[in-house]
Amino acid sequence: MALKLYGLPMSTNTTRAMICLHEKEVDFELVPVNVFSAEHKQPPFLSKNPFGLIPVLEDGDLTLFESRAITAYVAEKLKETGEDLIRHKDAKEAAVVKVWTEVESHYYDPAVSPIIYEYFVAPFEGKEPDKSVIDTNVEKLKKVLDVYEGRLSSSKYLAGDFYSLADLNHVSETHYFMQTPYASLINERPHVKAWWEDISSRPAFNKVVGGMTFGQSQE
Amino acid sequence: MALKLYGLPMSTNTTRAMICLHEKEVDFELVPVNVFSAEHKQPPFLSKNPFGLIPVLEDGDLTLFESRAITAYVAEKLKETGEDLIRHKDAKEAAVVKVWTEVESHYYDPAVSPIIYEYFVAPFEGKEPDKSVIDTNVEKLKKVLDVYEGRLSSSKYLAGDFYSLADLNHVSETHYFMQTPYASLINERPHVKAWWEDISSRPAFNKVVGGMTFGQSQE
Ligand SMILES: N[C@@H](CCC(=O)N[C@@H](CS)C(=O)NCC(=O)O)C(=O)O
Ligand SMILES: N[C@@H](CCC(=O)N[C@@H](CS)C(=O)NCC(=O)O)C(=O)O
Repeated sequence: MALKLYGLPMSTNTTRAMICLHEKEVDFELVPVNVFSAEHKQPPFLSKNPFGLIPVLEDGDLTLFESRAITAYVAEKLKETGEDLIRHKDAKEAAVVKVWTEVESHYYDPAVSPIIYEYFVAPFEGKEPDKSVIDTNVEKLKKVLDVYEGRLSSSKYLAGDFYSLADLNHVSETHYFMQTPYASLINERPHVKAWWEDISSRPAFNKVVGGMTFGQSQE
Repeated sequence: MALKLYGLPMSTNTTRAMICLHEKEVDFELVPVNVFSAEHKQPPFLSKNPFGLIPVLEDGDLTLFESRAITAYVAEKLKETGEDLIRHKDAKEAAVVKVWTEVESHYYDPAVSPIIYEYFVAPFEGKEPDKSVIDTNVEKLKKVLDVYEGRLSSSKYLAGDFYSLADLNHVSETHYFMQTPYASLINERPHVKAWWEDISSRPAFNKVVGGMTFGQSQE
């Protein structure tokens, strides 16, 4: 039975999961969720994810939410297929993948996602972007990217000289971030820039990038 | 060679790692870090964790940071010892552990940790607690705990009828949170209260709770 992913092709959290599914070249059905009619805040969907957010993955009778739990599950289930995103044959490498996966969750995403929100979502909701939120998070992000620059000057990818879940989890948000005026934060840091060019040119990402159209109607 | 954990017994992130080490009854050396002299913001320590934060775990030549990456590593390395915190024999259970581990990271911790900060750390730094930060996060936390109440009315622990990393990762922060005036948020929700009483009475937590003295000098 094919996997079902509930979500939307323009959503960063949905595409995080899709990129991983494409890395593993696994068949899945993308089931659109009508967030504009708040389908995700109502009972049938809430029984899949009580937080009422996309994406949700169904694999037979198993229902999972949280995009990073989904990528971890897919990477584990299909560890022998395609790129080994979790380095399951080497406990030390696997541990370092976990470290940098946590870094994305606890430092990168908390800084980048408010910038994307203010830049793309606030205008869409008819609000002015909040400059002070952007400024605070740009400062936070600079510190995070300074650490990345150091790290990526000694290894090609975050967890070592191999592409892993730690890198993959960054791709969808960074794609939108690169369309903001703050893209220079990445481009000014040569190792971070080279890393971004590398991870954003993988075929799995190319399969989803066309659907990531949020904010395009504004232009 | 014994594991070395760099950190402090009063720190929530250090104790998160310690609780996991104690669950596995593994020997480790706690190496204190002088955060008051900013030892963690200087070169020798920064080479262990470029973000300059505790805890850090050293296992031979492997150096790990991020408390949740440390608990995941310890749980995986010692999966056959003591409680199986990652459910490694059942891929579905393991996936659900990951879901609720992500929930702690993305909803619970972001709401609880600013409350703890304002209540314990701000006064320690000579600042008034910021009431508006507390209020915003109390509102966020209520929504998260409503989901937990529903979840814990159908399973004893977050990921199922078994104690896992998903529960363990909550313990250290919740311990401090229960000393704030907002403890009622937990106590008012019967299933959440029963869950907290259960997970906070495990021997592994009893081994660290005595050192969690932050804020006691104020009283
Ligand atoms: N931590 C969650 C976040 C999920 C999330 O925020 N999804 C967004 C779409 S990118 C959503 O459902 N938004 C609709 C809403 O907030 O109502 C994950 O990683 O899956
Ligand atoms: N996400 C990190 C957070 C680590 C952290 O914030 N540690 C605190 C102690 S609980 C720290 O090092 N504080 C010192 C500082 O901020 O300078 C983890 O889970 O380990």
